[in-house]
This record gives sequence, structure tokens and C-alpha cells, in this order.
Amino acid sequence: MKQHNFSAGPSILPIPVLQKASEAVLDLNQTGLSILEISHRSPNFVKIINEARALTKEILNIPEGYEVLFLQGGASLQFYMSALNISKLNGTGAYIDTGTWSTKAIKESEKLGDTTIIASSKNQAYKYIPKNISSNKPFDYLHFTSNNTIYGTQFHDFSKLSELANNNNAKLICDMSSDILSKKIDVELFDLIYAGAQKNIGPAGATLVIVKKNILQKNPNLPTYLNYQTHIDKESMFNTPPVFSIYVAMLTLKWIKRLGGLTAIESKNREKATTLYNEIDRNSLFSGLVEVTDRSMMNVTFKLNNENLETKFNTMCQDTGISGLNGHRSVGGYRASLYNALDIESVHVLIKIMQQLEKIS
Amino acid sequence: MKQHNFSAGPSILPIPVLQKASEAVLDLNQTGLSILEISHRSPNFVKIINEARALTKEILNIPEGYEVLFLQGGASLQFYMSALNISKLNGTGAYIDTGTWSTKAIKESEKLGDTTIIASSKNQAYKYIPKNISSNKPFDYLHFTSNNTIYGTQFHDFSKLSELANNNNAKLICDMSSDILSKKIDVELFDLIYAGAQKNIGPAGATLVIVKKNILQKNPNLPTYLNYQTHIDKESMFNTPPVFSIYVAMLTLKWIKRLGGLTAIESKNREKATTLYNEIDRNSLFSGLVEVTDRSMMNVTFKLNNENLETKFNTMCQDTGISGLNGHRSVGGYRASLYNALDIESVHVLIKIMQQLEKIS
Repeated sequence: MKQHNFSAGPSILPIPVLQKASEAVLDLNQTGLSILEISHRSPNFVKIINEARALTKEILNIPEGYEVLFLQGGASLQFYMSALNISKLNGTGAYIDTGTWSTKAIKESEKLGDTTIIASSKNQAYKYIPKNISSNKPFDYLHFTSNNTIYGTQFHDFSKLSELANNNNAKLICDMSSDILSKKIDVELFDLIYAGAQKNIGPAGATLVIVKKNILQKNPNLPTYLNYQTHIDKESMFNTPPVFSIYVAMLTLKWIKRLGGLTAIESKNREKATTLYNEIDRNSLFSGLVEVTDRSMMNVTFKLNNENLETKFNTMCQDTGISGLNGHRSVGGYRASLYNALDIESVHVLIKIMQQLEKIS
Repeated sequence: MKQHNFSAGPSILPIPVLQKASEAVLDLNQTGLSILEISHRSPNFVKIINEARALTKEILNIPEGYEVLFLQGGASLQFYMSALNISKLNGTGAYIDTGTWSTKAIKESEKLGDTTIIASSKNQAYKYIPKNISSNKPFDYLHFTSNNTIYGTQFHDFSKLSELANNNNAKLICDMSSDILSKKIDVELFDLIYAGAQKNIGPAGATLVIVKKNILQKNPNLPTYLNYQTHIDKESMFNTPPVFSIYVAMLTLKWIKRLGGLTAIESKNREKATTLYNEIDRNSLFSGLVEVTDRSMMNVTFKLNNENLETKFNTMCQDTGISGLNGHRSVGGYRASLYNALDIESVHVLIKIMQQLEKIS
């Protein structure tokens, strides 16, 4: 039975990518060697990682002066690493708290220096994105999470945050783990973007970092691995990189380009999200969990108004091959993650059973 | 043509492991989902990581009181992380310098506190393992690299280092990246062992850590990801782990167990190494690069006495499907890495062309 994979991450990848990756595990491009057993210094892999970096720059339209890195440790290591690299000594980090991941980033910054939460939606269980954000004291960098995978909220406009950072002569840092490559963005607004790969980039095990090179202070006292400059100097090959994850990321980037790049991807994602939100709003049994204006295009959170119907709905999901629809354990309800590789067909299948449930209830 | 993969890492993996991994990229155990697109919190993956941890404990005969972790960032991040977690404030790290990787570990320790090199073979280009090691000042931990992938030397006895650490009431830390799982070891001698996966454990992207739990000081000020206690508490699932690398590591561990565990593996590795070293010593054209007593069972470094024969020999290697035999760029010559998955047949093929070259020269 075809599975409709709504998992929040690690998550669905394009079928042609999986097919090519499966072949390469046995034999990479007729070399007689597996992608898993070639040296990262071999010409075959150097070509792959260079292609992954070039495709990232091309697809995201990254301007000159930025470097693309493939690291390890996930966004969780970036919470610390970003603050470590960007904060000046005794610098102040300004953070926007929009949920679990922001909170974790704040915790790491607090270990390094002065940290201020300048806006938060905690008072309403993170159901909205704070607006009209300002700060009454200066700061050196501003950090936010563009899409909140757990709660299902998303920043739809970066320009005001960029303005706020600029007015403070501060750097703008964004954790884009769950919406990078889902739509066009203006990279130039940012000084540092990081993202765990396991949503729209590729499988778990790689972390994408896009960093404006001239913002880094050359500080030889930083731990070598945790210094962005190390990885810039070595073109992401300071040590053995996560070879397979980068290979599959390269295949996924190629797939995005073939599909028409982020314009095509964004339009496809918008259609999926609009279709599903429309049904949630129309169907008397379901409700969305967050403010309508702040709804995420990637992670659609909703619930059954009558919890007694959950067992029935869960069984219907299972019988239809729908997987990964459970809400995060801290929120409950449902969460349909609509990452790039998910076809609109899967959304239609989900809507169909939502409508069936309405009919029989 | 069959390839004989002597690569130093990422390196050869067992064919049944590659076959199973290739299948799982398309469909993990008839779930209809790829190993690359399932949640790390799904029962399917929780079973995999638990099995990987249990097999590691079983195969290495790890006593109670130790935890097995699968992290990211490679040994290069462990250089810093081990010193950060183990050193007391103002503590002293004693290091044995046996080459490139030791040197890198020393560099990270120096960023954290007092660091002493108590023995080094740098004076002879790392061609031997220092003996009769002692320290004239106390230290808190002793760090060494068990096998030097680049130079081809290996510690064959851990007992004296363990004694030295004990006499100083110090912890013993070992970077075992390139010889873990190649032979039986007594884990009880160590407080901390770490190893990048990409030799005998599995593909690049995972880092194995074996840590004695009671040596850790609960220090909430450590960066969360860099604190071993974080990963112990969360059973290596603090954040999204490198799912595929851990899956393939689990398959490789199963393969080791099926083969008869480390007794069988060690005997196979010893035979391969002895056979190749015998030929190097016998063949008038070749010489080994390191002290005979300190030769590595994993990475056999040698050279042609007459450099003019290199082009000829390289062509013969290529024509026979031998790959990855070049010495590290800092050493030159040749390096045959004989990791677990390499069959003795490949060693015989190599020896055959060494003998052919001798005949025609």
C-alpha cells in the first residue's frame, strides 16, 4: 500500500532521490564502489559536495560573500555554535521565543553571555507569532526560528526583523530547519542561517549553514570544530563529513532544480497548505490550532473538536496508509507536515477521510 | 571488475550490509517507508538504535556502568568534547603524541586548560610508539590514539597506560577511531573511548562514544550538545541522530556477531596483516615505513625503494581493481588499510602484483 508520509522530520523524500540513493549504496555511478565506502577526499566525493554547495547557492540565489557549509550535530549544536561565533565578548543576544526550538537556542546563548527575550508568544502556548517587535536596549544579534515545527506557526515576513537588526547594527540569525527550501527567501537579509537537513534538504545527519563571511571574527581560541571559519577555510572538509547525507542532499537539490526551483516548489507547497487549511476550516469536526495569519505552510496543526472521535480517525488514517500525522507529544492533536516531496495527492487522501469521518459522525 | 578497496576511511563495508542498506533506502522491512524518511521517534527506529547500542555492548563485552552513545561531529569534535567533559576546572591533561590525530586532540585540550605532552614520537616522524612512558607531574586524565591511521603505528598493549593513569588517579581516554571493533579489547581499562564510525563501525556521519558514567561531573553550564550527560539521559536521542549511519552501523555490528564476534574478526585481521607484512619484508622492492614492533594491523604503510617504479605499480594496481592504496598526502608511499570487511583475497591480489613487479623489474 502506498504510504502517505506526513512525518515532521526526518520526513518524506522524493522517490527518484530514494531510487538513485539506493543504487549508489551498492554502486556509485558505475565505479564499482558504494557511496558508503569511498574516501571523502576522492574526486568522486569532492565533486558531490561541490555540486551540493553550488546547487544550494543557485537555488537559494545566495549572493556573493556568503559561504555554504555542511556540518554535523543538527540545529541543536547550532544553537550554541551560532551564539559562540557571532556574539562579541560580553555581547548581547536578542531572541524571539516562538516555542521549543527558540527556547533551546536561548538556553545555549545564556551559557555564553547576556541574552534578552525581546518577544515571546509563550503566554498563549505559542499559538501566534509576536508582532511589532522592538527592544529597549541595544543588542549585537537577533535570533529567531522561522517556522515552528511543533506548534505550526511561521514567520511570513522577514523584512521587519531585518530592519530591527539593522537599526541596532546587529546581525540577524535564523534557524530555518523546517522551512528552508520550501519557498523563495531573500538571503541578503540574514547574516547566518542554519538548518538541520532532515526536512526539505535530505536525510538526517547533515546541517546546512549559510554564513556571511565578513561577520566572523577570526578567533583562534574557539574550539576548532565549532568555529565556522574552520569549515569555510576547508570547504566543509575539515574532517570527514557525513558523506551519504550530503550525497542525498545533492540529489534532492537537483530534484528541486529540475522541478523548476523554489518558485515551482513554493507554488506547490502553497496549494497543499491552502487545500488542507480550507478543509480544516470547512469541516465541522476539526479546528486549526494557531492564529490564522501565522499558520505554517509546512506543518499544519489541527485537532478533532470531539476527542472521542480520535480512535476512529486514527484507524481510518492507518487503513489509508497515512503515517506520521500525530501531533508532537507536547501539543497533542494532529500535525500534517507538507514538506516538498509530499504530493498533493496525499493531501487529497487525508481530506477524503476527514470528510468521510464528518459524514458518518 | 571487482574492486579491492584499501581506502583508509570512509572505507570498505561488508557486501551483505550494503545490500540490506540499499533495500532499506527504498523500503525498511516492508514498512513501505524508506529508512531515510522515518521519524527517529518511531518504534522502527527506536528498535534500531537500541539494537545498535546493545550489540556494541555485547560485542565489545562492555561492563556495567558504561554507556554507549552515537553522536555526530566525528573524532574531531570529540577532541574538544572529551577534554571539556573530563577535565576538572584547571585540570591537567596528559597526552601522548603519536601523530596527526593526537596533535589535533592536544590543540583542543590546550584551549581548555593545562596540557602536557608526556611522550611523543615526533622526533622520528611518528615511526614508532613511545615506550616506558611516565610523567613527572600529576595529571587528571591521560589521552592517547590507539591506532595511527596516517603513519601506520598501533599501541599493542594498553595495560601500562592504564597503570600509569591509575597511579595518578587519572582517567584514561582513548581515540580508537581506526581500530575499534578490529580485535578484542578490555573496555574496563578505559574511562572514555571514542571513535568516528567510518572505519569498522559503519559509514561516515556517526561517532561512537563509550563512557564510564560515574566519571562525569554533572555540570549544567556545559553546552547542552557537548555534554555527555545530555546524551546519556536521552539515550542518544537528545536531538535527531544520524539515522541512516546508525542503521548501517547496526547492520555491521550484526555482521560482526554473525561472523563469530571479535575473536573471529581479530584472527582474520591478524592473518591479513601478517600476510602483507611478510611480503613487504620479503620483497626486495618494498620497505615498511614504521618500527616492526609497532606496526598497525589496520593500516599497513610501505613504500617502493625505487620511486621510479611508482607509475608502473600504480598502473598495475588500477588494472587489478585495487583502489585507495595511496599513502596519506603528508607521508607519501602506500597504505593498505585492512579493515574488517576486506577479504584476504584482496590482500592476495595486492601481493600478486607486488611479486609481478619484482619479477619484471
